[in-house]
Amino acid sequence: MAGGSGTRFWPKSRVAKPKQFLQLVGKKTMLQQTVARISGMVPPERTLIITNKSYVGLVQEQLPDVPAENIIGEPVGRNTAPVAAAAAAIIEARTPGAAMAVLPSDHYIRDEATFAAILESAFLKAEAGAHLVTIGIRPYRPETGFGYIQTEQESSDILEGNPVHQVKRFAEKPDLKTALSFLESGDFLWNSGMFVWRSDVIMDEFENHLPELHELAVRLKGKLAGGMSVPAVEAFYEAAPSVSVDYGIMEKAATVYVLPGEFGWNDVGSWQAIYELEDKDEQGNVADAENLLMTGCSNSYAYSRSGRLIALVGLEGIGVVETDDALMVCRIEKSQDVREIVARLQKDPFQKYR
Amino acid sequence: MAGGSGTRFWPKSRVAKPKQFLQLVGKKTMLQQTVARISGMVPPERTLIITNKSYVGLVQEQLPDVPAENIIGEPVGRNTAPVAAAAAAIIEARTPGAAMAVLPSDHYIRDEATFAAILESAFLKAEAGAHLVTIGIRPYRPETGFGYIQTEQESSDILEGNPVHQVKRFAEKPDLKTALSFLESGDFLWNSGMFVWRSDVIMDEFENHLPELHELAVRLKGKLAGGMSVPAVEAFYEAAPSVSVDYGIMEKAATVYVLPGEFGWNDVGSWQAIYELEDKDEQGNVADAENLLMTGCSNSYAYSRSGRLIALVGLEGIGVVETDDALMVCRIEKSQDVREIVARLQKDPFQKYR
Repeated sequence: MAGGSGTRFWPKSRVAKPKQFLQLVGKKTMLQQTVARISGMVPPERTLIITNKSYVGLVQEQLPDVPAENIIGEPVGRNTAPVAAAAAAIIEARTPGAAMAVLPSDHYIRDEATFAAILESAFLKAEAGAHLVTIGIRPYRPETGFGYIQTEQESSDILEGNPVHQVKRFAEKPDLKTALSFLESGDFLWNSGMFVWRSDVIMDEFENHLPELHELAVRLKGKLAGGMSVPAVEAFYEAAPSVSVDYGIMEKAATVYVLPGEFGWNDVGSWQAIYELEDKDEQGNVADAENLLMTGCSNSYAYSRSGRLIALVGLEGIGVVETDDALMVCRIEKSQDVREIVARLQKDPFQKYR
Repeated sequence: MAGGSGTRFWPKSRVAKPKQFLQLVGKKTMLQQTVARISGMVPPERTLIITNKSYVGLVQEQLPDVPAENIIGEPVGRNTAPVAAAAAAIIEARTPGAAMAVLPSDHYIRDEATFAAILESAFLKAEAGAHLVTIGIRPYRPETGFGYIQTEQESSDILEGNPVHQVKRFAEKPDLKTALSFLESGDFLWNSGMFVWRSDVIMDEFENHLPELHELAVRLKGKLAGGMSVPAVEAFYEAAPSVSVDYGIMEKAATVYVLPGEFGWNDVGSWQAIYELEDKDEQGNVADAENLLMTGCSNSYAYSRSGRLIALVGLEGIGVVETDDALMVCRIEKSQDVREIVARLQKDPFQKYR
């Protein structure tokens, strides 16, 4: 899933190049990292990228090994359930009943080997029956920005050493008090938005819970019998309802399993997350700039590719991000508020900076 | 006196355009403000600007009413005593025994009418006898960065309502404890570096205390009988010793008077001073930028003429100064440490940013 157009990394991310297409941590873009991370299990010809139509060129550029017909351009964004349904229809047309993973393309995972082992076990579980599988993240702070998954305490299964729990319920983003109780209980996981299932099984779930979308997916599958068809995909999207996998399917499905993951997952939601993920010098500074001088600074972050000289004096906890045409300076712990700036870029004279 | 090459306002000030030539507070440059402030008393043809040779063009550009022969280029900087001696020699050659004021060109004065009244009284006092006159600033904080002037408690004179005190002694920059005692005593003033005297009187003081410089000044005066001579001024400077008016003359002269001034004087020593002098919005922010968006910021400062979009998020007490080729971000209260950055610009690859 590479369709997001988030702007939390403005001014580095722009409408024309959102987060998943940026090198935010490390040398690969978030999308390239996502594909590389599963490449041991999923070859390029079986990797589908569903993105906004306007980003198809960017995806082809960043993933030259993925065949062009596997890069699907959404003419209009319709949340995650239509993405899953379109992918299931394509897979059903090609390899009916195959296990498939639906993965966001803009998350960071530090420990890729552990992740690969968990995903492998999730595939095994998904292949074994008519149920849905998801990967949950073991929480370590009372985060109020994520949804949670409550599990049965006892694992129902252990696959290649990885315990599998049946899901008791999905919980929406909690308030702080609830988040604290979730953290203490030990049987709540963060909902990572990573799903694994068989294409035939998810089609049945769509039929049960989102029949309108199921009908569109069945029609799409039929039109793809002879190969990829852009008009068919576009017709599907134009008619599809906007609904999330979580709300439309996961919360309603009869049997969902979850594999708890601890592999250094981070949804990279703000410049603060980047600062926290990057290697720091002795003063806690992160410098990713060509031409930088610092004096008396600590716990600060600098990013620049403008070529200009950047001098930072006496800063503590400040982030400086500059591009050729824009500069953003923030208190790192307030970096999520860059959204308020981006909201103001909708109007002239600032539209060109979006 | 417009010869300084300070770099405390980097990146706005550069070696090629130091502080006195910049619009730091208000629409005129510091030099233009200095000349405008005395224009009611001193017409352009009696205004002498002594600056570094490399800045003569800048001065002519900024002060088109001042005759070219009144703009003196120092081939080499020699501190303030040679400036005073050269000026005295020029004035002695033109209008012997005239009262003259020696003024820095990079200070800010808020209340110009009060300043003009004090300077007028200082001229009256200077014209009245063979003594030196200076203007001291009534201190309001235990500043350790200025020299002080201790006065006799009783005023010796009141001229047009302005009390004149005899100077007891000049004191160098104090430590904090001493500065506190100065502040409490009530008879100490800040040394502003503004001096008033008759040209013949200061020539006699040079003869008494800096005879070598006096001899050079007498020679210069002789060579200027027929009008301004650049070679004569250059020969004077090449031979002149480097010494300050304070150390060389004021601390040694037998009779010095001081007029206490309270007219919103500020030596504008750092970006912090600029921030403090400028008008602020309700959140205490100062914005002097073309293209600025702020959210959740307080007590912060932004200066830009680059045309780029500047977005500030969640800042408190932060200064952002950017030019076409450089960006400086500082904690405002640490802004004096920009000196440490400028010191590092002496070496490549950073020399072009000086």
